[in-house]
Amino acid sequence: MANGNGSYIGIDVGGTKTLVCVASESGEVRLTEKMATSGHESPTAFFEWLFRELNPMLARAGISLNEIRGIGMGFPGVIGADGGSLSHAPALPWPHENLLPLIARYYEGPVKLGNDVNMALLGECWQGSARGKRHVLMLTVGTGIGGAMLLNGSLYEGAAGGAGEAGYSIVDVASLPPGGSLNGEEFGPLESVTSGTGIAAEAKAYFAKRLSAIGGSDALSADSSLWVQAGGRLDGLNAPLVLAGAMKGDADALAIMDRPLGHMAAFIGTACSLLNPELVLLGGGVADSGDYYTNEIIARVEGLTPFPVAIGKASLGNRAGAIGAAAAAASIFR
Amino acid sequence: MANGNGSYIGIDVGGTKTLVCVASESGEVRLTEKMATSGHESPTAFFEWLFRELNPMLARAGISLNEIRGIGMGFPGVIGADGGSLSHAPALPWPHENLLPLIARYYEGPVKLGNDVNMALLGECWQGSARGKRHVLMLTVGTGIGGAMLLNGSLYEGAAGGAGEAGYSIVDVASLPPGGSLNGEEFGPLESVTSGTGIAAEAKAYFAKRLSAIGGSDALSADSSLWVQAGGRLDGLNAPLVLAGAMKGDADALAIMDRPLGHMAAFIGTACSLLNPELVLLGGGVADSGDYYTNEIIARVEGLTPFPVAIGKASLGNRAGAIGAAAAAASIFR
Repeated sequence: MANGNGSYIGIDVGGTKTLVCVASESGEVRLTEKMATSGHESPTAFFEWLFRELNPMLARAGISLNEIRGIGMGFPGVIGADGGSLSHAPALPWPHENLLPLIARYYEGPVKLGNDVNMALLGECWQGSARGKRHVLMLTVGTGIGGAMLLNGSLYEGAAGGAGEAGYSIVDVASLPPGGSLNGEEFGPLESVTSGTGIAAEAKAYFAKRLSAIGGSDALSADSSLWVQAGGRLDGLNAPLVLAGAMKGDADALAIMDRPLGHMAAFIGTACSLLNPELVLLGGGVADSGDYYTNEIIARVEGLTPFPVAIGKASLGNRAGAIGAAAAAASIFR
Repeated sequence: MANGNGSYIGIDVGGTKTLVCVASESGEVRLTEKMATSGHESPTAFFEWLFRELNPMLARAGISLNEIRGIGMGFPGVIGADGGSLSHAPALPWPHENLLPLIARYYEGPVKLGNDVNMALLGECWQGSARGKRHVLMLTVGTGIGGAMLLNGSLYEGAAGGAGEAGYSIVDVASLPPGGSLNGEEFGPLESVTSGTGIAAEAKAYFAKRLSAIGGSDALSADSSLWVQAGGRLDGLNAPLVLAGAMKGDADALAIMDRPLGHMAAFIGTACSLLNPELVLLGGGVADSGDYYTNEIIARVEGLTPFPVAIGKASLGNRAGAIGAAAAAASIFR
């Protein structure tokens, strides 16, 4: 029996990198590999490149593509009800086209496409911190905010494949622009405060105020180690710096994090009131940075939900999407 | 063949009234009857009374209980994972007890118990305005706020039967009490502003301010017809009065409704971003009062969701719960 028998390929497609994994139906991961992906201007060019890379990669692991039982792929966007058309994918500015026929040129077996956060949730449910759970809300807090749900043991994708757009949630109705519309905003209201990008913006606004109150950068440098670490420039502020400071108890960092944490906790409370999940899983760069973030969220969500809920960290890191895509290919969660 | 063959009983149990319906598997409603229910201190006493009333009611329609294929019942509370234990039911202050054995004393066929808003949603999906839909969020806006979801064509009840507690949602994080906890509040944050009770409270706060600004009730009566209709008393203000005024364009009523409508729209936007339903159904006394409420919600939610969603009114009124309980008994939605 060849190596690849009973194996599935999972691929997490990103704007700058693509992760490939090969896993058996029982969840044994045989291979994970990361590849740079920038510069493919069309899905045709991307898949041509992908399968050209894939064959030798599989060969090195002693597997041939025609032994693979199915391929799953996650994309940073929405896969429509037809199972093949990608939209809402700013990181992949491709012409709109059904991806399935393009993939079929290289692989004739079953193919399952989906949103990358949905795939990451399936990965965590299969091999990570959500194993055995049936009602899970996953939130990825990174450059933006992503969301995915396992409900009654199945991935919930919504009427048009768009479920999980947590970034558009409204927890601070007073901050909506006049007319109360999200139109024209790149980031949703929750995302613009709580994502890594949002935390950096909060830090800039905080130090802009501090600067004018204290009377200049030199005075601020004498008072704030976070400001020194940012090189004494607003542009030097970013989420990792703020999180590292907050972990060490830095007063400026803690003050900056109060609003992003409060808004995220209010959203999680709302989502738990609505969905009554057994587990909320936090992933992405912001949540991954030590236990500080998760512990703060746990403390702040307590008392905001009518039913108890566990809150924990995702455990597969950036491999979750590829592993979950393999789980989708193997139809582990129906 | 007797009348009752292929028929199911649906019962909507409330604190003050109980609605019974008998429906065929194809959805033909053969009977609906409303009964006063106050004063039953235990589930034992309640079911003894219920089945004593039920038999002659069925007999009048030419149906006998032993021809009935199943009974469904909705309760204003949470039915646990065992399918029989009722909790979180302030309107039915019964000792905690599994209800299924108590019902089995009178009826030996299959019994399905659930939350009353969940049952109302099933009713609307079976016979009302959500027919043929597979992804529906229902919100009942009455004395309190209720919520229920049909996802992928199945009722979603959550990990502990508690899904749909929309009233605890947070859309105005600044209004959370110090410490940011819901504990000890009878109504959730969304509920305390947007329910009928909330609208009445908003009206009282509004007119208390108006009163002190204008310098007394007589001056206010000369200026505000809503104040006159309330009998010139804060206690005379209630949601139906405010809604009737808003429908006629009364300036005070419109000002009072702004916050409840804005908060409800923000919550619906959030829920749609998370769930991507095809339809949001509004029911309950507040939503039932003419088209004003629904039209305002439609206008305010537009632009708050990343994907389009239809918003409409429930159509079965207070019969929805009993009809949905019959649908649950007949396992129409799995």
